[in-house]
Amino acid sequence: MVYLDNSATTAVSPSAAEAMVKAMTTQYGNPSSLHSLGVEAECLVTEARRSVARLIGASPEQVIFTGSGTEANNLAILGGAEAKNRRPHVAITTALEHPSVAKCFDALEKQGWSVTRLQPNEDGNITPEQVEHACTPDTTVVSVMAVNNETGAKLDIPTMVSRVKRIAPQALFHTDCVQAAGKIPLFAERWGVDLLSVSGHKLHGPKGVGALYIRKGVRLLPRILGGGQENGFRSGTEPVPAIVGFGTAAAEVPAFAEQEKQYMQLRNVLIEELQALPEVRWHTPTNAVPYIVNVSLLGFRSETLVHFLAERNIFVSGGSACSKGKHSSVLTAMRLPEQEMSCAHAL
Amino acid sequence: MVYLDNSATTAVSPSAAEAMVKAMTTQYGNPSSLHSLGVEAECLVTEARRSVARLIGASPEQVIFTGSGTEANNLAILGGAEAKNRRPHVAITTALEHPSVAKCFDALEKQGWSVTRLQPNEDGNITPEQVEHACTPDTTVVSVMAVNNETGAKLDIPTMVSRVKRIAPQALFHTDCVQAAGKIPLFAERWGVDLLSVSGHKLHGPKGVGALYIRKGVRLLPRILGGGQENGFRSGTEPVPAIVGFGTAAAEVPAFAEQEKQYMQLRNVLIEELQALPEVRWHTPTNAVPYIVNVSLLGFRSETLVHFLAERNIFVSGGSACSKGKHSSVLTAMRLPEQEMSCAHAL
Repeated sequence: MVYLDNSATTAVSPSAAEAMVKAMTTQYGNPSSLHSLGVEAECLVTEARRSVARLIGASPEQVIFTGSGTEANNLAILGGAEAKNRRPHVAITTALEHPSVAKCFDALEKQGWSVTRLQPNEDGNITPEQVEHACTPDTTVVSVMAVNNETGAKLDIPTMVSRVKRIAPQALFHTDCVQAAGKIPLFAERWGVDLLSVSGHKLHGPKGVGALYIRKGVRLLPRILGGGQENGFRSGTEPVPAIVGFGTAAAEVPAFAEQEKQYMQLRNVLIEELQALPEVRWHTPTNAVPYIVNVSLLGFRSETLVHFLAERNIFVSGGSACSKGKHSSVLTAMRLPEQEMSCAHAL
Repeated sequence: MVYLDNSATTAVSPSAAEAMVKAMTTQYGNPSSLHSLGVEAECLVTEARRSVARLIGASPEQVIFTGSGTEANNLAILGGAEAKNRRPHVAITTALEHPSVAKCFDALEKQGWSVTRLQPNEDGNITPEQVEHACTPDTTVVSVMAVNNETGAKLDIPTMVSRVKRIAPQALFHTDCVQAAGKIPLFAERWGVDLLSVSGHKLHGPKGVGALYIRKGVRLLPRILGGGQENGFRSGTEPVPAIVGFGTAAAEVPAFAEQEKQYMQLRNVLIEELQALPEVRWHTPTNAVPYIVNVSLLGFRSETLVHFLAERNIFVSGGSACSKGKHSSVLTAMRLPEQEMSCAHAL
């Protein structure tokens, strides 16, 4: 089997699965229980929090676990926006974002927010200059992803943060790092972002867990109310098994430089081999991470080729898994011709 | 080891854990992916949905998965309330509810809703007559739990539903069945409730998954926005491993009559043995399910006894795991003397 759909989801690493089984069958206490079995479960969560914090360049007390990357993005944007009382309500985001970010801004717009959606250039990129030009002292919420899930475009978050903070020091800066985590080094604290989201199942952890970095002092209104777990930001019994799996997988992320070199080589082989075919169109920005490749093989519709390859045990994507059956909003924003869009594949 | 804290959380059944490992290491596709690995993952979710639907007496298309019972309660109450445009906004709930329900009504009250919180009698019960008396044609949201997590009190949901629907046909009736599922037979459709929540980790499924029954035609505003999974009610990649574990555990719930008989016998042994001790106070309502016992051993503070027993590998609760360290709001509502509250244990 050749599984090339790792931007959609990954296999859980054997050691993560093993740690999860232990957490489910012997260390199964409720972290809120006072007895030793509860304390043991709480320790597992603490250990995983340390591991995820290390991956994203934060201290553990600034990391909370959620049920998914989507939930982390929603909490960051909607919870952050709700905590902002000062008017006017002005937000900046991009046309490259995942639906879990884009839909939040659609909702804010309906509530009266003024939302600027930056359009990518034809290379699929958004520049710090674009963000800077859109920013005014009234800007209150900014959300820009670090790595695009369909093209691999890598956005320059640290420069964007410093430009935004210079113009609008009180603005919340959120970055969706769901596709970036495990692919590029993340430095939540050093970059100066206020909020940063990641997800377990994109880096060989399980589906069902995400995490949100919340810079100390940042105000967010919780979106799920109850027992006050995760510092009151996210109530509900912690998904301990998934958290343990996420922590284990986060600790196993290989050294970035080495990993990137290996994937660069793999990508070069792919480019060379596909070059031989007629009418190949690459939609991979020049500064893209090597882990994601987006290509149209003209004459072969995405869905047809996805099934053709799957029958041969090769798994690729015909577009973001989250936009099942519809044209990619990312490629649309890049103004690709209709034919190239219907023949696009990501791997 | 004698684990008696199953109202807080349960061990995951070996077969559920096994099915989860398979879902994580070989059937790990994203249910939204178009290829066969994605379809296989979607089938796993469909199968689990059928199993949970069967457990709660609903058809599968009326069941959605969430990340926890808490999230299901929040979606039901806050999502249901937000979809109600008609004024006035009048809600009924009880003083027995779990924080994930109670806090939602606190939030609605802050938004201007008028909220009635029914108080239990000294036996820890709420009667259908109390609900009926509180109900008016203006009532729009009602939420009453089926089995109380601290005392085992079993509330007569079907009678409450029919009385509410007679007076306020348009009212949404939600019932938190997180502690009831697996302990008593549930009949979401037959009872006529609009919304019914359950959780995986209370019945030997994993932490990190809940489910919400949404009667056909009931309007709810989603609380987590994004890719539109779970019929648009709950976006985010489905927590497939946890869903699979929940489905497996739900299918393993033993026949209710037999199970109840066995637990009745166990409870009787406990009552007889404890009777020998001086100053025992039972807080178990007459109609309680036999799975939960709440007792004060006067002179032994809850926390002390919890640790004393844990050292001997016996695990009980010193109150709801979700109210860590604070007095039980349920026992407070039952107007127990201070001394009995500080010495209460649930098992």
